[in-house]
Amino acid sequence: MHKADLAVLPCSLARSLQIVGEWWTMLVLRDICFDVNRFEAIHGHLGIARNILKARLDTLVEHGLAERRRYQTRPDRYEYVATEKGSQLVPVFLAMVAWGDRWAAPDGPPMLFAHAACGRDTVATVVCSECARPLRHEDVTPHAGPGYIMG
Amino acid sequence: MHKADLAVLPCSLARSLQIVGEWWTMLVLRDICFDVNRFEAIHGHLGIARNILKARLDTLVEHGLAERRRYQTRPDRYEYVATEKGSQLVPVFLAMVAWGDRWAAPDGPPMLFAHAACGRDTVATVVCSECARPLRHEDVTPHAGPGYIMG
Repeated sequence: MHKADLAVLPCSLARSLQIVGEWWTMLVLRDICFDVNRFEAIHGHLGIARNILKARLDTLVEHGLAERRRYQTRPDRYEYVATEKGSQLVPVFLAMVAWGDRWAAPDGPPMLFAHAACGRDTVATVVCSECARPLRHEDVTPHAGPGYIMG
Repeated sequence: MHKADLAVLPCSLARSLQIVGEWWTMLVLRDICFDVNRFEAIHGHLGIARNILKARLDTLVEHGLAERRRYQTRPDRYEYVATEKGSQLVPVFLAMVAWGDRWAAPDGPPMLFAHAACGRDTVATVVCSECARPLRHEDVTPHAGPGYIMG
């Protein structure tokens, strides 16, 4: 199965990964969300090859996760800003950061995240929308939803 | 920069992606976590090529996200089960599913997730560990933590 076929799986994880599953795509979007918005800055920050960075930025724009915005004329210069669709991936990133901090950070968390709403450093916690308790693997059982259609 | 170098970035997102950033790795682990544990079953469920599936399963075992367990002798047969490290990615998956349900599910959620703790279908919600409010992009500011060491 080619990667492009992931979208036919009746699964929002597969469909999400089709959009942002490439490593660099997520890291580039992370940069854009946290004030590293210009091509040269992202290039310098991530050490990503220019042609790959160009392709990833195009992917983000194509899927509506980021917009290209002109910030200077003569010569024209552009920066990239996250859309609402892109911004809403930040909590997903933070959930993955929390996992990485626990399992892949022997020296302690590389980055901390101050939460303006309470003034403290936050650890992203995934909870149930209905009862607010933390979601745990053993408590969750998948079943088919209204969009369960095999492509 | 080669993908293998992602681990040197002082960022738990990059380090997590180095482990589980390949699309199939996440989808294979998802299957293992939700009772699709045997090679042939995963192969049939995901439509993934055998050589790629073998490589992804090896990656999951190598990084301690899954274990290979014999369930039959003569001939020996094995299945894969998630470790604690692997299981703790399920909430991250569910956060990504919730994003995909919102942004990439025009026919409605393909899968729903019953939450045994409250008996209802859950939508994974990422909240702050300190104040329990939902984390939003605009409220979170990264800063260097104790493990901020450039490799």
